[in-house]
Amino acid sequence: MSFDFDQAMPFARNTLYADLRRDSGPAWDAYVTHRFVHALAAGTLPHAEFLAWMVQDYLYLVHYTRAYALLIYKSETVADMRGAANIVFGLLNNEMSLHRQHLRQAGMTESDLDQAQEAIETLAYGRYIMDRAQAGDVLDLVVTLSACLAGYGEIGLRLLHDPQTSQADHPYRSWIETYGGSDYQGLVREGLAHMEQLSARHGGAARYPLLLKQFRQAVWLEAAFWDAGRSMGRG
Amino acid sequence: MSFDFDQAMPFARNTLYADLRRDSGPAWDAYVTHRFVHALAAGTLPHAEFLAWMVQDYLYLVHYTRAYALLIYKSETVADMRGAANIVFGLLNNEMSLHRQHLRQAGMTESDLDQAQEAIETLAYGRYIMDRAQAGDVLDLVVTLSACLAGYGEIGLRLLHDPQTSQADHPYRSWIETYGGSDYQGLVREGLAHMEQLSARHGGAARYPLLLKQFRQAVWLEAAFWDAGRSMGRG
Amino acid sequence: MSFDFDQAMPFARNTLYADLRRDSGPAWDAYVTHRFVHALAAGTLPHAEFLAWMVQDYLYLVHYTRAYALLIYKSETVADMRGAANIVFGLLNNEMSLHRQHLRQAGMTESDLDQAQEAIETLAYGRYIMDRAQAGDVLDLVVTLSACLAGYGEIGLRLLHDPQTSQADHPYRSWIETYGGSDYQGLVREGLAHMEQLSARHGGAARYPLLLKQFRQAVWLEAAFWDAGRSMGRG
Amino acid sequence: MSFDFDQAMPFARNTLYADLRRDSGPAWDAYVTHRFVHALAAGTLPHAEFLAWMVQDYLYLVHYTRAYALLIYKSETVADMRGAANIVFGLLNNEMSLHRQHLRQAGMTESDLDQAQEAIETLAYGRYIMDRAQAGDVLDLVVTLSACLAGYGEIGLRLLHDPQTSQADHPYRSWIETYGGSDYQGLVREGLAHMEQLSARHGGAARYPLLLKQFRQAVWLEAAFWDAGRSMGRG
Repeated sequence: MSFDFDQAMPFARNTLYADLRRDSGPAWDAYVTHRFVHALAAGTLPHAEFLAWMVQDYLYLVHYTRAYALLIYKSETVADMRGAANIVFGLLNNEMSLHRQHLRQAGMTESDLDQAQEAIETLAYGRYIMDRAQAGDVLDLVVTLSACLAGYGEIGLRLLHDPQTSQADHPYRSWIETYGGSDYQGLVREGLAHMEQLSARHGGAARYPLLLKQFRQAVWLEAAFWDAGRSMGRG
Repeated sequence: MSFDFDQAMPFARNTLYADLRRDSGPAWDAYVTHRFVHALAAGTLPHAEFLAWMVQDYLYLVHYTRAYALLIYKSETVADMRGAANIVFGLLNNEMSLHRQHLRQAGMTESDLDQAQEAIETLAYGRYIMDRAQAGDVLDLVVTLSACLAGYGEIGLRLLHDPQTSQADHPYRSWIETYGGSDYQGLVREGLAHMEQLSARHGGAARYPLLLKQFRQAVWLEAAFWDAGRSMGRG
Repeated sequence: MSFDFDQAMPFARNTLYADLRRDSGPAWDAYVTHRFVHALAAGTLPHAEFLAWMVQDYLYLVHYTRAYALLIYKSETVADMRGAANIVFGLLNNEMSLHRQHLRQAGMTESDLDQAQEAIETLAYGRYIMDRAQAGDVLDLVVTLSACLAGYGEIGLRLLHDPQTSQADHPYRSWIETYGGSDYQGLVREGLAHMEQLSARHGGAARYPLLLKQFRQAVWLEAAFWDAGRSMGRG
Repeated sequence: MSFDFDQAMPFARNTLYADLRRDSGPAWDAYVTHRFVHALAAGTLPHAEFLAWMVQDYLYLVHYTRAYALLIYKSETVADMRGAANIVFGLLNNEMSLHRQHLRQAGMTESDLDQAQEAIETLAYGRYIMDRAQAGDVLDLVVTLSACLAGYGEIGLRLLHDPQTSQADHPYRSWIETYGGSDYQGLVREGLAHMEQLSARHGGAARYPLLLKQFRQAVWLEAAFWDAGRSMGRG
């Protein structure tokens, strides 16, 4: 893909996030250029695997949302509480709602989803972020979640600019437009801008080695998570 | 006051909440018939004390909202998460917003409120509910918060039916209408109905002695909290 | 194996634990009769796999210990706090110390262990118990941990009575004696007795469906965890 | 008192702790030179008030110990977990045990203490530290607890060097020797040394304004806490 990510996301330079991404090196590449992502771009990903993965992604989003609920709880000002509450509201009523609509077309109800078994990759990643969100402070929390928030933004943007994905009947076009689109890209920009502010107030520079360790673990779990749908097929 | 509370709130009979309220006895009366409440009804409460108390109430609501954020985090279904998120959203954008508007008229900005010193009663009550919300399960959480939720509903309804409060220029009429009004009364009914469901699934009957202990402590702290404004005047 | 477990562990009948174990059915069997357990009994488990697994078990014990630290925090009486603190002390100074000694003979220092990468099975199980330990109450916590506490007691006892393990130079004899021995069996009995008391006070019977769901998830993760050493070999 | 505290506690210079103490100014003086402390030194504190205060101090120590249990949970290395577990063990088996022995002589059993009503000052301070211990990271936790740990060390040392306290039949001699003695002073030194290490790794310098805010709140609550015994007498 010839798309220049660094040019497209100028906010990501000279920031805590830019350092974390760069220093995650091979783990980051394993995440954003995973077989699943390539097959999604090429439109060759089997639909059954995509659906099985989306069920797991929905189950993961439950915990991602719970982590943002802890951000409301950990915020230091009422304005920050409102910001975190807006994210929770958006996740429950927009992002998870899109998943539910998509999965309803495949015959799954919300109650089926509440009862669905989590893959080991989902358990690992979902509960890892919960643990960091509870045990650390606001900066630990947003840094750990940023691997998902910004990584999906990067993948969405890459795929949107990938010539393979441009045809109108591409099977995963709507997924790509969700994460590559301006709404989600705006959320990424806001989230990373907030992370920079928290980093300044909470000593991000001095804490870099510990923050990087958490970020890398989250990135490693993101890469593993692409196989969550397959994993359930086997189990 | 000749208003028959038990008749007005029929949902409160034969429920966990009705038992908790009855078994809190004198502590409950000390809360709902406190000097502050009588002076509010009579319109004789000094406005300076009311404002000082409202600042403390706003600071308390920060923690009440944080506790409901933990309810999102502790919910067992996505539907329950949405319910708790709606409460958080309402608190941040409606109830706390009303406080901010009222206090802005008295010359205080949101930033002043973020920096205001908490009275010892506010610290005690706000952090007590946080501790129960974190250390216990969803039932411990909603039982502890119900002293505030339903107590204000009862006080609001009593005052709304109190002949003293009926004149149009009553200084605290808008406060009384907020808590006695149908919007807030609906929230109380929903909250207590949800508490009954949680009680059934989470063994409320068998846990009654421990739940009562927490509820009574919250009621005792509610009674003490009416003096939070005075307390700051002294400090 | 002809050893009659039910006769050997009479404490386990007519208890919450007995119900949970029985109702976990096939998942329980997959856990206590896993390939790894059979190979351990037969002495045919490759030593490299055993060591790789033991590193993961050590990393898991970090989180198991953290969960018991939360039990201190969630205890309702000072006597219960002391009981939980004794478990934490024993884990840090006895069980984890045995692991460290064993792994030191294989050339790994405590610092190596602090830096070791967790397998996905370790991340999943270790963080799942942390989440239940934080989000639930004391009963959720001890029920979730009991799959490990009592399961290892059962496996230790079975292996100790297995004729295959009786020869003096059995390569895993010391591991079997640790978990089958009277010290560990005493801890299991105390732990399950405490769980019964908590169940009575915290409505265990009424909460059974929710408790079973957590217990089963922990049992499923225990079965998966036997492959944690292999998993790292692949990764 | 002519005792030169700064010379006696050289560890306290050029450290995060020294800055926090200095910048708490009048609040710190209100804490360490409170009426209660003067009356303790002079031996004129009524014994009934001392006992009532000690009951509250015991109830406070329950939460102080719970906060250190959260330090085990939040520690990043097993060595740090062992350090925090040693503190919990010492609090439960030494400091709280001394309180129990003293109060048993006054006719109170451990069960009486478990059931004793907390003063509002105890609720406020005990739950404030729990909230900071849960919502923040390890550095927020140890900074908040250091107001108690090091303040009692300073008071103990001052009183031990106060000529008024030197007579053998001084009624509060044993209390003074506990906190002024070398065992407790060693714990203070270790605790503050650990806090300096955490401050370096967790960006203490950049986080100073937020850390100072928490420390000051704890100091203010310490000053208020000296009246916890009196407060119960009134209630």
